[in-house]
Amino acid sequence: MAFHALDTTTVLDYVKSRPALNGFFPDGATLIAREVGDGNLNFVFFIENADDPTNSLVVKQALPYLRVIGESWPLTQERVRYETQALRKHNEVAPGLAPEVYDYDDEMSALIMEHLREHEIMRYPMVARKRFPKFADHISTFLANSLFFTSDLYLTGEEKKQYMELFTNEQLRKLQEDFVYTNPYMDSEENNWNPLVDDAVQAVRANAELKMAIAEAKRAYTTHAEALIHADLHTGSIMLNEEDTRVIDPEFAFFGPMGYDVGAVLQNLILNYLSHYGHTPDKEERESYQAHVIEMVRDTWNGFAAKFDALWKENNRGEAVPTKYWDFPGGDEAFAAYRRRYILRLLRDTAHHGGVKFLRRMMGIVSVWDISSIEDPKKRAVAERAAIHIGSRWILEKDSFNAIDDLIAVVQEETADIEI
Amino acid sequence: MAFHALDTTTVLDYVKSRPALNGFFPDGATLIAREVGDGNLNFVFFIENADDPTNSLVVKQALPYLRVIGESWPLTQERVRYETQALRKHNEVAPGLAPEVYDYDDEMSALIMEHLREHEIMRYPMVARKRFPKFADHISTFLANSLFFTSDLYLTGEEKKQYMELFTNEQLRKLQEDFVYTNPYMDSEENNWNPLVDDAVQAVRANAELKMAIAEAKRAYTTHAEALIHADLHTGSIMLNEEDTRVIDPEFAFFGPMGYDVGAVLQNLILNYLSHYGHTPDKEERESYQAHVIEMVRDTWNGFAAKFDALWKENNRGEAVPTKYWDFPGGDEAFAAYRRRYILRLLRDTAHHGGVKFLRRMMGIVSVWDISSIEDPKKRAVAERAAIHIGSRWILEKDSFNAIDDLIAVVQEETADIEI
Repeated sequence: MAFHALDTTTVLDYVKSRPALNGFFPDGATLIAREVGDGNLNFVFFIENADDPTNSLVVKQALPYLRVIGESWPLTQERVRYETQALRKHNEVAPGLAPEVYDYDDEMSALIMEHLREHEIMRYPMVARKRFPKFADHISTFLANSLFFTSDLYLTGEEKKQYMELFTNEQLRKLQEDFVYTNPYMDSEENNWNPLVDDAVQAVRANAELKMAIAEAKRAYTTHAEALIHADLHTGSIMLNEEDTRVIDPEFAFFGPMGYDVGAVLQNLILNYLSHYGHTPDKEERESYQAHVIEMVRDTWNGFAAKFDALWKENNRGEAVPTKYWDFPGGDEAFAAYRRRYILRLLRDTAHHGGVKFLRRMMGIVSVWDISSIEDPKKRAVAERAAIHIGSRWILEKDSFNAIDDLIAVVQEETADIEI
Repeated sequence: MAFHALDTTTVLDYVKSRPALNGFFPDGATLIAREVGDGNLNFVFFIENADDPTNSLVVKQALPYLRVIGESWPLTQERVRYETQALRKHNEVAPGLAPEVYDYDDEMSALIMEHLREHEIMRYPMVARKRFPKFADHISTFLANSLFFTSDLYLTGEEKKQYMELFTNEQLRKLQEDFVYTNPYMDSEENNWNPLVDDAVQAVRANAELKMAIAEAKRAYTTHAEALIHADLHTGSIMLNEEDTRVIDPEFAFFGPMGYDVGAVLQNLILNYLSHYGHTPDKEERESYQAHVIEMVRDTWNGFAAKFDALWKENNRGEAVPTKYWDFPGGDEAFAAYRRRYILRLLRDTAHHGGVKFLRRMMGIVSVWDISSIEDPKKRAVAERAAIHIGSRWILEKDSFNAIDDLIAVVQEETADIEI
């Protein structure tokens, strides 16, 4: 049927009309729809069986426009197709770590998927210092599997080129190119920052070395097609509970640098660490949770590195470097050394892209809720100034980093003298 | 019309039937066709007016199969489409440096283009020590223009992504991935080398550092979509005379690393330099021509670097780094420094990919005529051993290179002790 925006009435008939959902709800069930999206970008409906609230699903429908502060960005509705394709791929290569897709309707720009009733968006409980003991294990599996199995290390050249054609995603790529790598560091009307850190913001915008290094990060983002990356993997794109973790909203997915996704996760964890200078006045409580967050950062990277290495060793079916290439005396050791070198480069790319993402959150169009929810601008500035310093140093010092503890040391040095 | 292979009779009617060629030959002209291709990959016909041999054109038709030594590789005929698209782009951005396209017929896989009657394939006269005083200026313009104007530095993201979709070129990319970056360095039946340099060949295949660095070059080749590269820019793909230079046969074109094209030109010039240890016994004659070749290498790189920098400075309309990004005190100097750093990276990429291409010519499926035409295996081994050493050092030492003279120094050091 031709595209039309759904509402809480029409969505019920729509769901009943989809053959793929036949039998999902019992015949004659009374269905209830709630619209829970922000209405700017997409509609998100929860559809529940009135007699059995565990019998439910989600309908997500893209609207033709995305409104961001003060400006209207026309966006093709293709983004739901990209999201669907990426979710299906994630379910395939990292089963249990993304919501299941039940149905997709191109004409209606509608994606019907699993309702994560028992999960919450990670950002909010982390501000409340909630702990998720399995998160680092889950997210490192998601990162290792989603990146390895969509790279040249696993795919043949032909397979990878076919996937790349499915994920051109021009418009959303351009959003990230502009709003992560360009506009925050120059005069651009949508930029927004705390006047109390204006000196630090202006220093970034006038730092020639940093600007060159950010330009290099943008070059990598736009030209290095390493794997299918989520490309928006912040803690607002993760839903979880103590037992289960799901990565949602991969509508920005395209073939880009792996370090961008890993950097997004680590950088968002550290922004949460910093936010507790505003949210958690009790020093003991704060330091305990911050130490926990640092462990999450360390465990996420180390888990990712170990799992990525093991996947590669066991599944070297891609055309990047065939196993036979290492068939010479000492070749096993050379293959292992090459994997270590490759993963070390990923660590440095993680610092590079993660560092840029620290900066963009502090001086671009959007902050993150962890920070923006600190009401007192002075307390907020404490976290923001540290984030700018950490991001700048990750970018400028990346080539000296050899282990995750080198990235963590920068966080600890830049927060050592904070008194609140 | 449905595809059928042309011959010297049917090609005449075919040419007369094409509306785009209406008026190219006078009405009633007697046309003569000669087939000059090798018949394995393509048919190439010269069509001439019997009364006016300057009134002529070329018809190139792709066959459905490419035969390489001992093995049959099915290839889609799309390669003529890629060649046509690339030639049209080259004529647009580097006018006068590629043959003009008159017509293209997708169904017949036929490209009709300018007949370069006054030009010769560069490889052969260089073996005869012929000099082309304008070559370095011409080829450096071709390289700077064809790479700059198809990169993110000039194109918007949307424009570049649209071009990339036109140049997926899966099959020919895979040929280069296998035969340049992989198979020559491992046991693969089509490999072919001079038994007199077997020790050097085996040393490359068992050198862990070198193998890791070649794997890194392959990673860049397969994932770094910087610009529309020719991807087969050896001296057999250049036709020229003292006044005019044309780059032909861009059927491998795709979006890849710029250094691959620059490296191909420089490496082929140096293979010619080395070939004179076999072709030119007179020491004075040889050294004089070799010094000339070294000047070509230096002038080609320096011309490329200066022209690329000037194009970027004057035409910074792409989205890579907008001019406004450099709008801060000292920003002009920072932009200049960023361009220098970018071009230095291209020099190192040139050494990296050029170095790999030295090796593949010595131990892979195909040598180059400059070397293979040295009949005495002992004399040929002199050139081949030096090529292996130079290629290995370009790859391993690339990060220490700061100017073209650093690459040239390796050539001079590796040939200093040659006595013939």
